[in-house]
Amino acid sequence: MDQANDPNRKSWISVKEDSDFPIQNIPFGIYQYGSNEPVVATRIGDTVIDLSSVAILGYFDGLNITDRGVFRRSYLNDFISLGKPVTNAVRDRIAEIFDETNEEAKNDERLKEKALIPVKDVNMLMPVKVGDYTDFYSSKEHATNVGTMFRDPENALLPNWKHLPVGYHGRSSSIVVSGTPIHRPKGQTKPADSDQPVFGPTKLFDFELEMAFVTGKSTKLGESVSTAQAEDYIFGLVLFNDLSARDMQKWEYVPLGPFLAKSFGSVISPWVVTLEAFEPFRVDGPKQEPEVLPYLQFEGKKSYNINLEVYIKPEDTDEHRVCHSNFKYMYWNMAQQLAHQTVNGCNINVGDMYASGTISGPEPGTYGSMLEITWKGTNPVKLSNGEERKFILDNDTIIMRGHSKNENIRIGFGEVSTKILPAN
Amino acid sequence: MDQANDPNRKSWISVKEDSDFPIQNIPFGIYQYGSNEPVVATRIGDTVIDLSSVAILGYFDGLNITDRGVFRRSYLNDFISLGKPVTNAVRDRIAEIFDETNEEAKNDERLKEKALIPVKDVNMLMPVKVGDYTDFYSSKEHATNVGTMFRDPENALLPNWKHLPVGYHGRSSSIVVSGTPIHRPKGQTKPADSDQPVFGPTKLFDFELEMAFVTGKSTKLGESVSTAQAEDYIFGLVLFNDLSARDMQKWEYVPLGPFLAKSFGSVISPWVVTLEAFEPFRVDGPKQEPEVLPYLQFEGKKSYNINLEVYIKPEDTDEHRVCHSNFKYMYWNMAQQLAHQTVNGCNINVGDMYASGTISGPEPGTYGSMLEITWKGTNPVKLSNGEERKFILDNDTIIMRGHSKNENIRIGFGEVSTKILPAN
Repeated sequence: MDQANDPNRKSWISVKEDSDFPIQNIPFGIYQYGSNEPVVATRIGDTVIDLSSVAILGYFDGLNITDRGVFRRSYLNDFISLGKPVTNAVRDRIAEIFDETNEEAKNDERLKEKALIPVKDVNMLMPVKVGDYTDFYSSKEHATNVGTMFRDPENALLPNWKHLPVGYHGRSSSIVVSGTPIHRPKGQTKPADSDQPVFGPTKLFDFELEMAFVTGKSTKLGESVSTAQAEDYIFGLVLFNDLSARDMQKWEYVPLGPFLAKSFGSVISPWVVTLEAFEPFRVDGPKQEPEVLPYLQFEGKKSYNINLEVYIKPEDTDEHRVCHSNFKYMYWNMAQQLAHQTVNGCNINVGDMYASGTISGPEPGTYGSMLEITWKGTNPVKLSNGEERKFILDNDTIIMRGHSKNENIRIGFGEVSTKILPAN
Repeated sequence: MDQANDPNRKSWISVKEDSDFPIQNIPFGIYQYGSNEPVVATRIGDTVIDLSSVAILGYFDGLNITDRGVFRRSYLNDFISLGKPVTNAVRDRIAEIFDETNEEAKNDERLKEKALIPVKDVNMLMPVKVGDYTDFYSSKEHATNVGTMFRDPENALLPNWKHLPVGYHGRSSSIVVSGTPIHRPKGQTKPADSDQPVFGPTKLFDFELEMAFVTGKSTKLGESVSTAQAEDYIFGLVLFNDLSARDMQKWEYVPLGPFLAKSFGSVISPWVVTLEAFEPFRVDGPKQEPEVLPYLQFEGKKSYNINLEVYIKPEDTDEHRVCHSNFKYMYWNMAQQLAHQTVNGCNINVGDMYASGTISGPEPGTYGSMLEITWKGTNPVKLSNGEERKFILDNDTIIMRGHSKNENIRIGFGEVSTKILPAN
């Protein structure tokens, strides 16, 4: 076990009981204070820890980090590129520094003054510079629901679905960090009663509850990553809101897949939680039948028990939960996704993002999109304030949260939140 | 007219009559000499011109380039980011420096010694760091051929095709420069006589003859680029070989589009030829019927007359031409593609790449892929050495060339060449 995961450790930084960020989490992100330069940070409780300052004070000495400047960057990519032996050693060291028994650090006034900032005082930025972004389609329940609604209920899953983790390339440039508002996109749609398309703001604005992993190691063109190797290449996870314009998608997606229906904005949580932090939450995934081809077979528990929730918050009203799902429902796990992505020799880079696809579970309350929750709008959601929603309206804020919990600890992401503004 | 385009200008650097690189071209690329650092370069005839050395010698003084280091980079992105007023001024200045009437430059021994290198002595690298890559599907003939073969000859074009430039996001990481060999990819395919997929090297290895444009200006999320503005955002063009594994594509692409059938490698020509260099070759494109929505309408000639050719060269044999097509055949032009890409607010960055899709013309000899040339393999090509090809075999080299020509000048790309190696 990594030292950082010791469930009995407590920090001298105060952590509320229901916090996603105990000393066992130690996620990584990029923060900005005022107009200062962006800096690599971690978080314990509601305190952001400036890792550049921690490094300057010498606390990371001996960890084989030759350039302390790696903590003074606009993105985590260079830090992640140091490799898991170094980044995990940094996590372990952070756990030691902020352990409640560490009297020296606890009494280091410079450390407290230079490195600790209340989370409410900082601006969290995009954690990674995304090279390529893939969106998978790995929830059987989601694919079945969509296939039932738009194709054939008797053959909801297409023939390839259980043989390979279906996925497509998405737009990297429009992946933004939590808190970034997104305008309702305009585009072409074809009304059912017309032969001709029309142009205007989407009428069917949706979210998709997803998780994404960030790769931490590169390959060369022609190389492949096996399912056994895959976890070495996965640095960590974020919550991922794959915003979707359903009416635009329906008109454009044949035969080459979703394009403008997705590329107007995807939103991620600011803290990348390492795969190592979720080690205590490994579980078996759904049984895969028929048996998959050898390159997709794997050993051990490769799924993770992570509770996921989606809330809609109309303006001036309380948020209302519309979905509670779980990452463990995914039919295809991350190791299989990465093995599939690279089996043809496609090269990967540090900072690439691989999203799961909408994570729907078996029961109605666990569906991960408004499309499924309201079943194409036929069964609207009633919000706490009495309003109804078939899809997302202007000025609604969509909030996703995720955490794992056992008898000892809770590890989470905080949230990914985005307000939908009227069309430009 | 840009000074650089003066058709009467001649250079004191020798240029063969059929060269793609007269002094009117002045493309940009990245070259490496031995193990030196990569440098921004241009080319006249068979001479590569090191622009970092030209800058150090003071020839670019007064052009508002505050950092000469912009020419000493691994990619063109920073140079392109200077903006068209600067990069076009650099083209004009290069035309002046190497004009045969410029006695001072012609007799500058330091310039000749430091900046001029025979093209055979250098290594050309990837010209740009590609952020996002989109592949359009903009040739009506290609879409019709594919629709006829795989769907319904009576309704070969899908309902959306004439209303919007269909496109999808591709993989950026695996775009490589001419000369890079590519291994035959492995992946899943489903034999026609089986219910189950099998795993192995693709049996239907194909090329797609495409062109791609590189964006030279960024937008913010939420902004759109109109067809009238689009050319301001297009820095230049490259030849693009979109390698494809047809059997993998057929099995994987429903419903989310091509994925592993494309992501194992795409190959581009090393020289980015500016849009300005093709100014004399503007032509009208095909008539668009039905009329397109207002955001896709445009004024003036937005298509370009660029001759394109594909050759197959088996090992130890001469190359054999299998296709001659033309960029002017594209139904959707680049301005429309970029307007469509951004109409939903999707942001673009400097160095993004937007490929045309396979460029097939109306006659059989003008088809831009083996799939079409041999009509799914039913009509093999007979090569000069007597061999036949249905698709690409191991150790075949695929070469694409492209140039525009009128009574005065010829502007071209040179070539994009890639050898196909056996599966790893």
